[in-house]
Amino acid sequence: MVPSILPKTHTWVILDSAMRALVTGGAGFIGSHLIDRLVARGDTVVALDNLSSGKLEFIQSHLDAGTVTHIQGDVTDFNAVLGAMKGIDCVFHLAANPDIRLGTRITDTDLKQGTLATYNIVEAMRRCEVKKIAFASSSVVYGEDAPLPTPENHGPCMPISLYGASKQAGEGLISSWVGTFGLQAWIFRFANIIGTRGTHGVIFDFIHKLKADPSRLEVLGNGLQEKSYMEVEDCVNGILHVMQQTDEPLNLFNLGSHDTASVRRIAEIVVEETGCHDAAIEYTGGDRGWAGDIPRAMLGIDKMMSTGYDVRFNSEAAIRHTAKALIQEIGINKEMNI
Amino acid sequence: MVPSILPKTHTWVILDSAMRALVTGGAGFIGSHLIDRLVARGDTVVALDNLSSGKLEFIQSHLDAGTVTHIQGDVTDFNAVLGAMKGIDCVFHLAANPDIRLGTRITDTDLKQGTLATYNIVEAMRRCEVKKIAFASSSVVYGEDAPLPTPENHGPCMPISLYGASKQAGEGLISSWVGTFGLQAWIFRFANIIGTRGTHGVIFDFIHKLKADPSRLEVLGNGLQEKSYMEVEDCVNGILHVMQQTDEPLNLFNLGSHDTASVRRIAEIVVEETGCHDAAIEYTGGDRGWAGDIPRAMLGIDKMMSTGYDVRFNSEAAIRHTAKALIQEIGINKEMNI
Repeated sequence: MVPSILPKTHTWVILDSAMRALVTGGAGFIGSHLIDRLVARGDTVVALDNLSSGKLEFIQSHLDAGTVTHIQGDVTDFNAVLGAMKGIDCVFHLAANPDIRLGTRITDTDLKQGTLATYNIVEAMRRCEVKKIAFASSSVVYGEDAPLPTPENHGPCMPISLYGASKQAGEGLISSWVGTFGLQAWIFRFANIIGTRGTHGVIFDFIHKLKADPSRLEVLGNGLQEKSYMEVEDCVNGILHVMQQTDEPLNLFNLGSHDTASVRRIAEIVVEETGCHDAAIEYTGGDRGWAGDIPRAMLGIDKMMSTGYDVRFNSEAAIRHTAKALIQEIGINKEMNI
Repeated sequence: MVPSILPKTHTWVILDSAMRALVTGGAGFIGSHLIDRLVARGDTVVALDNLSSGKLEFIQSHLDAGTVTHIQGDVTDFNAVLGAMKGIDCVFHLAANPDIRLGTRITDTDLKQGTLATYNIVEAMRRCEVKKIAFASSSVVYGEDAPLPTPENHGPCMPISLYGASKQAGEGLISSWVGTFGLQAWIFRFANIIGTRGTHGVIFDFIHKLKADPSRLEVLGNGLQEKSYMEVEDCVNGILHVMQQTDEPLNLFNLGSHDTASVRRIAEIVVEETGCHDAAIEYTGGDRGWAGDIPRAMLGIDKMMSTGYDVRFNSEAAIRHTAKALIQEIGINKEMNI
């Protein structure tokens, strides 16, 4: 007979001293910014990353300093995950398929890189007796019929993208490991996270399109999609702040900013910042960018705010800040357009 | 570029005439009762079942009559699913791991038999252009902090069992195939379904325990668990009624009865009905039967009722009806106890 496990009676170990963190996707966009903050507060970090979209240069200074170790491995490989889990105090599980649209062509992409990968993480945690996990979920779990701004207690959650389905499945795996095996978890449903070191996303795509052809910018959909954007440092600071302020067995928080911006406005800002002033902005039409895209999204962030945290950037400021930084990183030549 | 798909503008084909249905788990407990109803209304049926817990005798009369074809195959085998999908109008996806507690010992049981199997189903539907699916989900997706009775729009859903996580993941896969590929779906969150041809569950277990030893009945937990029970014919009639009355792209319904019964009451009824009047009922203690068990559950059924459907049995009547039937099926000898 299986003994009854009562997770609510567990006493969680509060880690006052520096801890050893595993960051999946640690060489990626959000992961590398999170590692900056973890190292700054004195943690040592193992970055598990297959470098499919992440880049070692994002964490090179920490690798050189010896505060971060990189393991080149894939979260879909259980043995790689198990090997990375030894001696870890807390897992930050950020690795995922970065290309949401890919899921519509190869339909097991998110199943493998999302759902199965998250199973590998929590099962390796169980075997290695690692108790704490923070998980990067997404606003897309709410689906498209949710009230805006959407609070954490909205239901039912009916995702319309395969990526959203994998994030919801990941949440469920984690909550079941909390309920059955005594894990402690923080689940963060992210708005659109943007910022330096971006490896994908709408601003990244627009800059690359203008770099290839400064005379025109093709925008998927009619450009009227309205979503909320959060700057990446605001995001990772929010993760760590919320984890310090909360201690339930399962802690669920939306992370986002206070407003939205349209895709049209993003296109205008990117055109301005690249200096491609003559670029014709062309819309492919339709009210969503691709099958499974949600035209309007804004997260309720009262719960995040109630922990004493707020963002520095609103959506438009985050977009402009990001556009400036990515134009530098991607190296578009403003003179091309003269 | 992937074209924009707008599932809400689809026109669904209403199947007035008899259709060809695929029932996964068709030789199982709920599946075989569903097949009885489908055949009665004139459908032809393919039953995909690996016979791990289902039994051909449950559908033998239909096999003999030629109205049902059995394919011995496993829903975890994509090619078996694909082969069964040809020419199907509507899928009833009921197959799942029947032993919730097994998930706590072999932790990928529900991942494979639940989540991956449901991926196989919807992906095979996409490839074969099958548009309609009904899915057996469960009250356990709500987790243990939900208000009782729990309405369909409760959130967040945080399942505490690995079985619950797989049901939630299945819901998300289906909703994402609705949103991305234009499936039409009915998701049913079941109360505890009980009745004749039971192959598992609390009443089934109690009768087998008394058959092995009529002098004592061990009950997992303190027996104070309170859950809602629905008789299996009430369940399958409810499925078909709701599908006839609703036609959204995604239709979500709780299916349950109006009240609850305690595990103590179930034990008493089974002892009465078996005639093992001297059996000592022994409780293992603790407020749940096993890790991941939810002590109190009751579904809100206003939405089901709003379609004009109601159950014939309340929880206690369903339990007594089931106990009588299963005692016949299992063949306990009441004289053993004299």
